[in-house]
Amino acid sequence: HDTPTKMACCGNCFCFQCCCREGETRTPEELTILGEIRDEEDEILPRKDYESLDYDRCINEPYVEVLEGMDNKKARRYEAVRWMMVFAIGVTVGLVYCSVLLLTIKCCLSLSAVEKCSDKGCLPLSLLELLAFNMTFVFIASMLVLIEPVAAGSGIPEIKSYLNGVKIPGIVRLRTFLCKAAGVLFSVAGGLFVGKEGPMIHSGAIVGAGLPQFQSITFKRINFDFPYFRSDRDKRDFVSAGAAAGVAAAFGAPIGGTLFSLEEGSSFWNQALTWKVLFCSMSATFTLNFFRSGINFNKWGSFQLPGLLNFGEFKCADGDKNCHLWTAVDLAFFVLMGVVGGLLGALFNCMNKSLAKYRFRHIHPKAKFIRVLESLLVAMVTTVVIFAASMLLGECRELSSPTTQNTTVTASSFHVTGSEDINSTVRQFFCTNKSYNDMATLFFNPQEAAIHQLFHQDGTFSPVTLSIFFVLYFLLACWTYGVSVPSGLFVPSLLCGAAFGRLVANILKVKLGMHIYSGTFALIGAAAFLGGVVRMTISLTVILIESTNEITYGLPIMITLMVAKWTGDFFNKGIYDIHIQLRGVPLLEWETEVEMDKLTASDIMETNLTYVYPHTRVQSLVSILRTTVYHAFPVVTENRQNERDFMKGNILVSNNIRFKKSSVVSRAGEQRRRCQSMKSYPSSELRNVCDEQNAVAEPAEEGEDLLQQMLERRHAPYPNLYPDQSPSEEWTMEERFRPLTFHGLILRSQLVNLLIRGVCYAENQSSATQPRLSYAEMTEDYPRFPDIHDLDLTLLNPRMIVDVTPYMNPCPYTVSPNTRISQVFNLFRTMGLRHLPVVNAAGEIVGIITRHNLTHEFLMAKLRQHYITV
Amino acid sequence: HDTPTKMACCGNCFCFQCCCREGETRTPEELTILGEIRDEEDEILPRKDYESLDYDRCINEPYVEVLEGMDNKKARRYEAVRWMMVFAIGVTVGLVYCSVLLLTIKCCLSLSAVEKCSDKGCLPLSLLELLAFNMTFVFIASMLVLIEPVAAGSGIPEIKSYLNGVKIPGIVRLRTFLCKAAGVLFSVAGGLFVGKEGPMIHSGAIVGAGLPQFQSITFKRINFDFPYFRSDRDKRDFVSAGAAAGVAAAFGAPIGGTLFSLEEGSSFWNQALTWKVLFCSMSATFTLNFFRSGINFNKWGSFQLPGLLNFGEFKCADGDKNCHLWTAVDLAFFVLMGVVGGLLGALFNCMNKSLAKYRFRHIHPKAKFIRVLESLLVAMVTTVVIFAASMLLGECRELSSPTTQNTTVTASSFHVTGSEDINSTVRQFFCTNKSYNDMATLFFNPQEAAIHQLFHQDGTFSPVTLSIFFVLYFLLACWTYGVSVPSGLFVPSLLCGAAFGRLVANILKVKLGMHIYSGTFALIGAAAFLGGVVRMTISLTVILIESTNEITYGLPIMITLMVAKWTGDFFNKGIYDIHIQLRGVPLLEWETEVEMDKLTASDIMETNLTYVYPHTRVQSLVSILRTTVYHAFPVVTENRQNERDFMKGNILVSNNIRFKKSSVVSRAGEQRRRCQSMKSYPSSELRNVCDEQNAVAEPAEEGEDLLQQMLERRHAPYPNLYPDQSPSEEWTMEERFRPLTFHGLILRSQLVNLLIRGVCYAENQSSATQPRLSYAEMTEDYPRFPDIHDLDLTLLNPRMIVDVTPYMNPCPYTVSPNTRISQVFNLFRTMGLRHLPVVNAAGEIVGIITRHNLTHEFLMAKLRQHYITV
Repeated sequence: HDTPTKMACCGNCFCFQCCCREGETRTPEELTILGEIRDEEDEILPRKDYESLDYDRCINEPYVEVLEGMDNKKARRYEAVRWMMVFAIGVTVGLVYCSVLLLTIKCCLSLSAVEKCSDKGCLPLSLLELLAFNMTFVFIASMLVLIEPVAAGSGIPEIKSYLNGVKIPGIVRLRTFLCKAAGVLFSVAGGLFVGKEGPMIHSGAIVGAGLPQFQSITFKRINFDFPYFRSDRDKRDFVSAGAAAGVAAAFGAPIGGTLFSLEEGSSFWNQALTWKVLFCSMSATFTLNFFRSGINFNKWGSFQLPGLLNFGEFKCADGDKNCHLWTAVDLAFFVLMGVVGGLLGALFNCMNKSLAKYRFRHIHPKAKFIRVLESLLVAMVTTVVIFAASMLLGECRELSSPTTQNTTVTASSFHVTGSEDINSTVRQFFCTNKSYNDMATLFFNPQEAAIHQLFHQDGTFSPVTLSIFFVLYFLLACWTYGVSVPSGLFVPSLLCGAAFGRLVANILKVKLGMHIYSGTFALIGAAAFLGGVVRMTISLTVILIESTNEITYGLPIMITLMVAKWTGDFFNKGIYDIHIQLRGVPLLEWETEVEMDKLTASDIMETNLTYVYPHTRVQSLVSILRTTVYHAFPVVTENRQNERDFMKGNILVSNNIRFKKSSVVSRAGEQRRRCQSMKSYPSSELRNVCDEQNAVAEPAEEGEDLLQQMLERRHAPYPNLYPDQSPSEEWTMEERFRPLTFHGLILRSQLVNLLIRGVCYAENQSSATQPRLSYAEMTEDYPRFPDIHDLDLTLLNPRMIVDVTPYMNPCPYTVSPNTRISQVFNLFRTMGLRHLPVVNAAGEIVGIITRHNLTHEFLMAKLRQHYITV
Repeated sequence: HDTPTKMACCGNCFCFQCCCREGETRTPEELTILGEIRDEEDEILPRKDYESLDYDRCINEPYVEVLEGMDNKKARRYEAVRWMMVFAIGVTVGLVYCSVLLLTIKCCLSLSAVEKCSDKGCLPLSLLELLAFNMTFVFIASMLVLIEPVAAGSGIPEIKSYLNGVKIPGIVRLRTFLCKAAGVLFSVAGGLFVGKEGPMIHSGAIVGAGLPQFQSITFKRINFDFPYFRSDRDKRDFVSAGAAAGVAAAFGAPIGGTLFSLEEGSSFWNQALTWKVLFCSMSATFTLNFFRSGINFNKWGSFQLPGLLNFGEFKCADGDKNCHLWTAVDLAFFVLMGVVGGLLGALFNCMNKSLAKYRFRHIHPKAKFIRVLESLLVAMVTTVVIFAASMLLGECRELSSPTTQNTTVTASSFHVTGSEDINSTVRQFFCTNKSYNDMATLFFNPQEAAIHQLFHQDGTFSPVTLSIFFVLYFLLACWTYGVSVPSGLFVPSLLCGAAFGRLVANILKVKLGMHIYSGTFALIGAAAFLGGVVRMTISLTVILIESTNEITYGLPIMITLMVAKWTGDFFNKGIYDIHIQLRGVPLLEWETEVEMDKLTASDIMETNLTYVYPHTRVQSLVSILRTTVYHAFPVVTENRQNERDFMKGNILVSNNIRFKKSSVVSRAGEQRRRCQSMKSYPSSELRNVCDEQNAVAEPAEEGEDLLQQMLERRHAPYPNLYPDQSPSEEWTMEERFRPLTFHGLILRSQLVNLLIRGVCYAENQSSATQPRLSYAEMTEDYPRFPDIHDLDLTLLNPRMIVDVTPYMNPCPYTVSPNTRISQVFNLFRTMGLRHLPVVNAAGEIVGIITRHNLTHEFLMAKLRQHYITV
């Protein structure tokens, strides 16, 4: 009789439904015992079954065939194509940015039109006009997001997740790109307090993912033999390049962009990839620069406007010999500002998190137009607040010495890239000719111009105005982020922080009479608040340094960001991490805590395995595929000899000295240990689950509509499909969990592919008669492989045998059960793995570790359990 | 009777002496067959037995004890100490640079003194005076290098090797630091064409390695429980930080420095480490900046002079509206200059390589004073050439409009950091008052000032002067690099390249009348030549971009560097790699070529293993340690059952279908295959080696002076120490290579430590009676562990048994024999491994891979062999 291929729960399972181990983090009763208090929102959120990306190559026989045909010349040709692709991505991203920028400028005209009207006193009318404009724009943006919900928000959490190795459906599709790029135009034009940098980074990543795929489709038609971009590995590399190009173009920071991609996406330091990413970033920056210089200044061929966002040049007035951008004394203030920025950022994040939870609970379940209504409400409130504040709370300030200002600007006309004369963006707004309304200057300008004002305007803003502006902006920006329009957070945070910094500068300079440079304080304030909100990483530090284009600001920016990050981390996570967490994405941290090393691989691995044999009958394969949801299956052979050696006696021979080695982990031993430790908890539910496992699986079923039943019971843990394969009831646990020698790993998509293409042989024939698939055939359907349920079973003979060995991954990285968590984690994260088999000293597979087993929450739960049992 | 613990050749063996596999790359006859042509120099060079660093943690029982006592609070305290250490390293490096700089400036005064004399016509006297000065300085520098030979050269090859994971003796010791720092002062002062950046980076790395060690010694005295920096892992992290600080201070490029360390040293992207490295770099930059600003300008607290090397500010004259630093058209010239720079760099490297080979062959074997003589000769020739060229070949040029020049400098006084007024460094040298001697301006200035002249001096240099200067400088710099004085190559390359670039600019501007900015061309020329010589990596690209402090130069610099690199790589390697290769350091490349994936782990692994059992007699351990030189030994048990299963039958069961699986690699099978493939070569020598292996080892020896004999025959491959342990002569290969289940890896240093501390138990007792060592005891002697030959054997009872299991690394990363090279390589390089056991599906160890098995040359040889057998 056929040995049954039962038993569940290996693989890539993020659903919390299947086996008793999962119950530990789920049962409320047990959670209490373990001392774990879960936030409410985690329960109410839908935890999606996110797929993992696989960065490791599967070098199976079809791939080896490709390798054999690969000489250095061919390899070099592929490399050249890769460089071309990367260049194309860079140029495309640059062009996309350029067009977005051109369109944005036109949209912003509506604002100044309103200002002109205000002079003539037609205020209510102009308010209405402004409202109508803004709400129309926001309505369009919101409708675009309805078409593609993934396009909402800044996109950085999504890109971060993707580069971390989680596949979120739809985030790198053309439709998302269109909705996002168009949506951000309208949401910015609609006067919302949103930035366009985040969405543009997302767009860049989509270009990176899409362009080489498009090429692959085109080239397939002209029969170009190039099946190399059809893998998660290549796609992720190109997405890295695209995202880097996005950052580079947005901030004029090619190095920062490269670091961003490396930091979020890199596994090991890959020099070849880094060169390509840097080249892509440079291409994007300079494409954008070329066209902007050409279009704005009509100086084609010069390169004067590096990025969308630019902080202008920080420099002292010509005559002032005592002026310093910053001195050692200022550093103390910067540290204090970092602390305050961290606190404010934590407050922002906390408020935004509550708001997001509220939205998830009360707005998302309802009809979609509610979301549109919310967007419109935000737009309306924003417009009214802007208008009212400028009218009622602004102060008229004298314009400071325009002559000094002008010469500086002329002298540095080459350097002050992107900022027009700083005085051209002040808003008079009812003030007399030589003065300006400071509130209106901040509110009735594009945010970038307002930032420039705060950084470079020598004329002071009144402290009251700055305080009011900061509070209003803080609240509105917090409300806005999360509304269903494409909305970046970078520029609003900078503006908000710059106001705070300028406020500090005003107090120090005017009230305390200190000799400081206001622009520096505004910059540091911006960095502090931004750092508090997004918890800047290394790459973002470099982005800020590059945006200021002034190396001397390196130290203060870095210190401020670090202080802000540490202060903020005391309270909560960064805003992007909060939103990633709210989505339930199983993100892997940078590294594990030292404490985690008290656990070993065997403590966290998944022990209930669904395995396949090297030669398996079609019926078993179909049954396995239809009754489980796992994405990979270990290929194993049984090893009854090992069982006898290790299970019963556990005696090893060393230099003729016999001793017991108890540390060799076996599946049965592990299972027994787990169930025993489980039974010591008072949770009856858990005990039942384990008892059930010890008892027999469900009674056998018969009948012709077996497959129909299978379909219905797809997620049931232990279905028993073929009666003759049912395990005997008298089997002990040792027999059910007998030793399995590990030979390789095969993916669900590969198995389905084999079945669809009829790769199998008859029982009475040799396995050599099985048809062979080429690498191109194996990867043809990437990235959307067919589902097992689409398979027409009538074409398959269930008694045929499939030899999976040529198609499996014969040598994935493995770890021993005693490996410490930090080592497992490093291997998994660095190599970008998807499944990590745990193999004991005898070569038996005892478990599988996936991304899910390495998330911080899971490890924490396991650690608590470890403390209880110890 | 005791089962013998015989047989050699695992581990960290770079000596080419031991086993038949090594012969493949060594026997000239076979080399011819394999088509491998070895360069001469590889034969004449002493291939040292470089040790590898081990970045992976060995989590054995003593370490687990430490872990158990570790809570989050303690971990946070250690983290804080680490940050403090990093900050201290940064500040120290900054201070070291500062003092070096202050001393250098004084030394350079001698040059200007000579110039003044030349006005009065006392030429021969001043030449003699100059010669005496220079040769004295160079003599001192050379004597310092005699004290510590590692201090010669730039130090970047050494740091690169160290961060790559190779321990070169003496490179991070205090004595090296002192010799290097003092030596570079004198060699620069001696008028040699050497830079001080490379040596200062090396000094920074030594500070990084030394400071935390110093702390550990101090703290041990006051009994601070901190045994954590006593491991290769921590030391390498601190060396990374120190090297980054060195780069940061040298070039004012904190980001570039961080990238340098990451690129050379990083395994996986480690965010925590990156933050620390960046912080360290920033600390160094700003410490240096603080003191330089204070001392030079007496403006304490301002930060105006970022790095040792600074390119000044590139900007157009105020009035010139049509001036652009570069335009799109110029890019084409930049690409051409990149090509030429690459060619020139390749020529430079080729000449320097021949010279280095000559030195290795003819100068190094001779008495040491010959090297001093060579240094003096170089110094003399350099001085005479400088003098003669300035006298005879210089042209007098008009000083260009000093007014424009001055205003620019004033306007940008804050930015042109480190460059005094550009006209203050021109040299008149016989010219009239309003003109200057262009050759003398280049030769009779510190190199940094000469670079500034070429970058920023509006007055033209004559093309003839530039050409002559370039040729002379090229030849002299090429001769100088490799002389036994501390000598950097960065600044000489930049200066040489700047002259080339300025020459191109002159031709384009004057002869062709193009409208270009000369400074840009000089900069690009410098980048091109530097790129051609050192083959710039990403980090060095960033360093150049940061040094120019002008983001708009990003694209041209990057394109030039890439073109130069590609052109140069067509001919030879970068200068640093050449010198690393000449030293015979087994450096690991970035990644393997695609072709290498035709090989698997079993093709490259070392199969002759020296193993130990979990419980081994003291006499066996001593015998193993004294008769082998390997640094690690696998801990194994015998597995005769597996032997029966896999060796004889090789039958697996899958779903009741029996089939043969021939791909399971076993040691005996592998050995048989290798010897057979070896015998098919016509090399009789090789055949003999293999036959000898098949036959019995040397006859047994007896007598009381066994250990004496062992000492003498330390490197003999298969000594037979204890007659009762000799393998029976009738053993077949299967018996000699019987299956060994792998349990862990133990280092030589750990074994010696166990023996010295008497960790063993008597045969009639339980292994639990064995004394236990703490983690502190295990690591007390780091980094210089005692040698087995220093061990007093009379204190040991040879019949006692050592249980090594608590001290071995129980779960190193392993790979399967079928793993492809790229995967093996990635794992090895990324995780910073030292030994990678190859374990088959049955859990048996079949081989070990070390750094040596993964070097490019070794893989190429194996690949050729693969092609021959296929």
